[in-house]
Amino acid sequence: MTDRNIRVEPVVGRAVEDQEVEIVERKGLGHPDSICDGIAEAVSGALAREYLDRVGEVLHYNTDETQLVAGNAAPAFGGGEVLEPIYLLITGRATKEYGGRKIPTETIALRAARDYLAEQFPELAFGTDVVVDVKLGEGSGDLQGVFDDEGRRMPMANDTSFGVGHAPLTETEQVVLETERRLNGPYAEEEPAVGPDIKVMGKREDDHIDVTVAAAVVDSYVADLDAYDDVVSGIRGYVHDLAADITDRDVRVHVNTADDYDEGSIYLTTTGTSAEQGDDGSVGRGNRSNGLITPNRSMSMEATSGKNPVNHIGKIYNLLSTEIARSVVDEVTGIREIRVRLLSQIGEPIDDPHVADASLVTAEGVSVADIEADVARIIDRELADVTSITERVIDGELATF
Amino acid sequence: MTDRNIRVEPVVGRAVEDQEVEIVERKGLGHPDSICDGIAEAVSGALAREYLDRVGEVLHYNTDETQLVAGNAAPAFGGGEVLEPIYLLITGRATKEYGGRKIPTETIALRAARDYLAEQFPELAFGTDVVVDVKLGEGSGDLQGVFDDEGRRMPMANDTSFGVGHAPLTETEQVVLETERRLNGPYAEEEPAVGPDIKVMGKREDDHIDVTVAAAVVDSYVADLDAYDDVVSGIRGYVHDLAADITDRDVRVHVNTADDYDEGSIYLTTTGTSAEQGDDGSVGRGNRSNGLITPNRSMSMEATSGKNPVNHIGKIYNLLSTEIARSVVDEVTGIREIRVRLLSQIGEPIDDPHVADASLVTAEGVSVADIEADVARIIDRELADVTSITERVIDGELATF
Amino acid sequence: MTDRNIRVEPVVGRAVEDQEVEIVERKGLGHPDSICDGIAEAVSGALAREYLDRVGEVLHYNTDETQLVAGNAAPAFGGGEVLEPIYLLITGRATKEYGGRKIPTETIALRAARDYLAEQFPELAFGTDVVVDVKLGEGSGDLQGVFDDEGRRMPMANDTSFGVGHAPLTETEQVVLETERRLNGPYAEEEPAVGPDIKVMGKREDDHIDVTVAAAVVDSYVADLDAYDDVVSGIRGYVHDLAADITDRDVRVHVNTADDYDEGSIYLTTTGTSAEQGDDGSVGRGNRSNGLITPNRSMSMEATSGKNPVNHIGKIYNLLSTEIARSVVDEVTGIREIRVRLLSQIGEPIDDPHVADASLVTAEGVSVADIEADVARIIDRELADVTSITERVIDGELATF
Amino acid sequence: MTDRNIRVEPVVGRAVEDQEVEIVERKGLGHPDSICDGIAEAVSGALAREYLDRVGEVLHYNTDETQLVAGNAAPAFGGGEVLEPIYLLITGRATKEYGGRKIPTETIALRAARDYLAEQFPELAFGTDVVVDVKLGEGSGDLQGVFDDEGRRMPMANDTSFGVGHAPLTETEQVVLETERRLNGPYAEEEPAVGPDIKVMGKREDDHIDVTVAAAVVDSYVADLDAYDDVVSGIRGYVHDLAADITDRDVRVHVNTADDYDEGSIYLTTTGTSAEQGDDGSVGRGNRSNGLITPNRSMSMEATSGKNPVNHIGKIYNLLSTEIARSVVDEVTGIREIRVRLLSQIGEPIDDPHVADASLVTAEGVSVADIEADVARIIDRELADVTSITERVIDGELATF
Repeated sequence: MTDRNIRVEPVVGRAVEDQEVEIVERKGLGHPDSICDGIAEAVSGALAREYLDRVGEVLHYNTDETQLVAGNAAPAFGGGEVLEPIYLLITGRATKEYGGRKIPTETIALRAARDYLAEQFPELAFGTDVVVDVKLGEGSGDLQGVFDDEGRRMPMANDTSFGVGHAPLTETEQVVLETERRLNGPYAEEEPAVGPDIKVMGKREDDHIDVTVAAAVVDSYVADLDAYDDVVSGIRGYVHDLAADITDRDVRVHVNTADDYDEGSIYLTTTGTSAEQGDDGSVGRGNRSNGLITPNRSMSMEATSGKNPVNHIGKIYNLLSTEIARSVVDEVTGIREIRVRLLSQIGEPIDDPHVADASLVTAEGVSVADIEADVARIIDRELADVTSITERVIDGELATF
Repeated sequence: MTDRNIRVEPVVGRAVEDQEVEIVERKGLGHPDSICDGIAEAVSGALAREYLDRVGEVLHYNTDETQLVAGNAAPAFGGGEVLEPIYLLITGRATKEYGGRKIPTETIALRAARDYLAEQFPELAFGTDVVVDVKLGEGSGDLQGVFDDEGRRMPMANDTSFGVGHAPLTETEQVVLETERRLNGPYAEEEPAVGPDIKVMGKREDDHIDVTVAAAVVDSYVADLDAYDDVVSGIRGYVHDLAADITDRDVRVHVNTADDYDEGSIYLTTTGTSAEQGDDGSVGRGNRSNGLITPNRSMSMEATSGKNPVNHIGKIYNLLSTEIARSVVDEVTGIREIRVRLLSQIGEPIDDPHVADASLVTAEGVSVADIEADVARIIDRELADVTSITERVIDGELATF
Repeated sequence: MTDRNIRVEPVVGRAVEDQEVEIVERKGLGHPDSICDGIAEAVSGALAREYLDRVGEVLHYNTDETQLVAGNAAPAFGGGEVLEPIYLLITGRATKEYGGRKIPTETIALRAARDYLAEQFPELAFGTDVVVDVKLGEGSGDLQGVFDDEGRRMPMANDTSFGVGHAPLTETEQVVLETERRLNGPYAEEEPAVGPDIKVMGKREDDHIDVTVAAAVVDSYVADLDAYDDVVSGIRGYVHDLAADITDRDVRVHVNTADDYDEGSIYLTTTGTSAEQGDDGSVGRGNRSNGLITPNRSMSMEATSGKNPVNHIGKIYNLLSTEIARSVVDEVTGIREIRVRLLSQIGEPIDDPHVADASLVTAEGVSVADIEADVARIIDRELADVTSITERVIDGELATF
Repeated sequence: MTDRNIRVEPVVGRAVEDQEVEIVERKGLGHPDSICDGIAEAVSGALAREYLDRVGEVLHYNTDETQLVAGNAAPAFGGGEVLEPIYLLITGRATKEYGGRKIPTETIALRAARDYLAEQFPELAFGTDVVVDVKLGEGSGDLQGVFDDEGRRMPMANDTSFGVGHAPLTETEQVVLETERRLNGPYAEEEPAVGPDIKVMGKREDDHIDVTVAAAVVDSYVADLDAYDDVVSGIRGYVHDLAADITDRDVRVHVNTADDYDEGSIYLTTTGTSAEQGDDGSVGRGNRSNGLITPNRSMSMEATSGKNPVNHIGKIYNLLSTEIARSVVDEVTGIREIRVRLLSQIGEPIDDPHVADASLVTAEGVSVADIEADVARIIDRELADVTSITERVIDGELATF
């Protein structure tokens, strides 16, 4: 084991699962903020892969600032229209020339955005329902200082920053996460009226969980208000069953609670996202890198999506701390909750954080001392392997929002 | 015959065909200015047709101000890349709501631009090689005053403006026009290396015609400099033959004269247009409505493309005067050259111009007096039928640039 | 006392002041994210005041999405140049017509941005160093449902959301907050070389506090590297003294640690912000509404700046919970730490949250039971007075970032 | 005398002054197209001067594509408001780095636009009434080939292009030109209600001249409809007197003929330009380089404003041919009308055009043969001095629109 500065200690408080009030939120794939996260990360991955293909290494870039300006639409039962397109501005910087070779960074970015939109939001016609523009400044070329003194290839931290991860998910967190994923996955495949803009809020008070779903319904699949109501009811039932598989607690499900059928005010959309009318979005304002917003837990404000995965320490440490937390819970028995924090030192190798501290809530009968060494060993092992985070991000294997 | 203010008189000077020096230019379909003209007119037509479909009449709009900001590309033998996209901003105004119904004017505009680009410039990927944005202000709704006192449905002129048309084309004009059309038509179909950005300049001094062609060559169809030179030679020969079919004068053809093979400076492009690198464009700066720039002839500065064809008098009179000139030459023998000018009166019916004057150069043995009545009759007939110009524009039958 | 759902309970864990590792960050006024926060909030305040002036009430708007695209600059000792301007896009929506009167929302927004920039960033020339553009969609007019059943004028929550506030600040938090405020205030007045883009990171391990300051130095006030070094040293000494006034703990101060004098790599800027070169920004990605980023504490992801202060519940509850926490600590003795959370119910009056819970760490010898009633009473009183938050925001009295 | 290819020959037709129908137009300084021309030329001049200051020669640039997107305003007697700003996009390209030195081309452009707007349009608040954005691509650095074989410093033509100039102005042309200049000059100084957007159309039929003026009236100086009518009457009288000083022909003056007082439809503006509401503009669509649109005369379609004055042959030859025509008329007696055309040869020195031809209408009793040598000598002299055109353009002494 190395001399990394690893601390393992007990949490003095209660596990989140045991706290009286818990709040959890997830903005679904089609939420305007998530659209920006998704495009920023798609652009980032595409740039990284192209750099690897063309020059053998990832050059300097950051594309974590996509801005979405909402459009204007006129949804109608049976199919409405987009009146004014959504406007998406991809900003950031990327290295456009290296070793005498030009890199078509803006073309790469636009193609990545196009492909991502096509895959995730088939109702949104690229270039007409959504106009994607790009303004990438010049990056600074080489990523400096990627070798340490002993000649190991290990990037240096670009900033003093920190990452934080947790495991396992509480029941409420699982319910919120799964609700969005399954609605946007298998359920939407069967029921195309469910658009990708699904926002889920979970609130637990003691043993009562309220799940509030706001789901954009796609007008072309809904003939009238009855059909709309069927869609809403379908979601409600599906989420209820899904939650019952996860928790024995009392669960109530609320769908599109702002609807007012008498006034004809319902959550009907032409494209399946509120970005079509009035809701702007930007990167880093929604889900944290574990896919959730969890005010009961320590969170980083760092935007993970769109950042360079080679040396942007905020991105790497947020993802890595989450991975470590999961690994520890998988491999070590007796842990009810773990929080892992990684604090970088600017200019130092990223496998050697200033401090890596793990706080544990152990199961009854288990003391921190019993498992401290195991936990520290896993943290050490994962830190040594930190560059695999970079690789998995580039390969698109790690979600960032 | 009506009491329209029609004048027919002799030109005191020489026909253009007889002048010592003649200059003629045509910017081809893929020239940045022509791209803007084409999109402006495509958007205009699409709006007009949609208004007719939805509300039964053409509402107020003008979309004659598309601006193209050049991209950046790295052409290379065998296929290069677009580095930064071309940016196209469609501006203008259009009526977005009428009789309580929303009209998706921006969506219509973007779709029209997309379809036009796809049809004319297949090498240009919509949304990645070229980003099209749109900013349409609100139009003023109804087109006012489209009925005159006797209840005839006849639009009133929206301005004091004038149009001018000529016939027949001189040999130099024919050569210039046909060179671009055939290169961009049948020739490019056989030889895809010829891109749509073809600029043709004709200069005649007495009986010597120089035809200078600047043709953007598409890199993916050209393996090396020899192949490039073959393309250039091919064009030169083709244009020479084409010119010989039109004129017996001495013709010299020059293609891509700015090339410098030794310095590797050639007109190679990735997408077939100079808009990919450095050449901006906008509406109304290129060809007049007869497809040519003819400093030997009277020209209107009015941008024809993108204007509303119902009551924009500059557009209508430029197209109509050209149609009249052609009809007169077709139907009346003994005319070597005719110039028709139509001057509107703001607020008066467009079939009743302030003055319609035709200047003639007659063939030997023919006096203006011999044919004056015939000419006036045709002018009168065509003016009476002015609204067919509107219809043909809406149907896309009349070219505007 | 009302029947508001107020809970007061002990924190089971340790106060943040007692935890082993504490991390605190503040992005200064001139940080690109904070520039966006500041403009978004300035625009919001200006709109609210204009609505009140013109129609007597605040209409629907949200302007919480300003995006900053970095410029390009060439700083140089003695004074460099901006090469390409910073681009700021103000987006959102606002009601543009009400009761037949037009409201010049975009003009209001641009003026507010201009005035805010002039006041805070005098080195940034409006319109040349920074281009500010605006795209405001149409808002939905009246803010609905602002009267409850009993006729009291009390806005209804527009969403299910929550806010969280803490008091008092830990020593580390105070040091971080005061460092930025004083550097950007009295210190910069004396030493104009200190630009407004000051980022402060505080890290406490047990009783050792590291304060890391990244301060943009303005080139026109710095003649050479020695002068630059003097500025850096001056900041270091000032912050050290400042911290010593706040805490007895051991404090180390690090300023511009990424500088490398040998390589000539220093934090020199022409305008005092990194936005001039390479660093983009957007609203809601930096400081929470108490001015800090505090991963040791519960945080809301909600962007507070730019939101409508009448009924945007996320904004109101974040500000109110912070105010409540401060009031409680001011008025009740024996509290070491309080966290206040307010959870809204969509559609219910904002003075009646779904739950208001306060978690306390009491001083030695004080039990929660001793002070519970006092705390609850203050919470109740402040909730009853919730609309004063709206007023103070509109008057610009409450900071949001 | 040199061996330049100079031709002098008679016009076979009539002088324009003798033709039956003559049409002349001028778009005033504040017309949206002219605003674009003015900014494009202001930016061009500023770049040229900065290049000279910084690197001793003018580098490659072209800024001839400014686009104006109209705003939205609510004019009102006594003072209205701009609701949405005018948007101006300066495009083109300019050399940003030369000999290792960065040139702040975008900053230069924005400052030039700001200063030009402030000087010409004091009612337009920079940055709030009008947003100016800039997108300049990278220019190609050195202007190549500026020395010919004998070592003289003489730029080479960058294109095959032509310029055309005329002298003297006809009476109608003088009336139109002076009407706009004086209204926008001394008259507006006395009567600030007259805004800079003044469009003048002159139509002469035989000896009857109709002058139609469309003048934007500034609302803050006009209390009511009577005051407005006074402004209109004042203009009418002033123009009538002005015309009477120029011509003995019968002149009728029409001002704001589209007004309908009964319907309250008048040409009232807040900022003095129709760009504030609905009228877009772009470079090169309005006045030719002599300040007029003259369909009775040969015109070049080339946009003169914004072009590089060192080697852009279209710009240089349009300005030079006009200067030559004026000089000839000044220095040689017996000329009623002259048209000078200059046709370039790409790659050849600009003082050696392919052909320079002058067509003359002589006064009674004067034959072309009498004055041919004098005319040719002046043309030769002016061509030899062609680079003084460049200098005068850079110094802002030559108007381009």
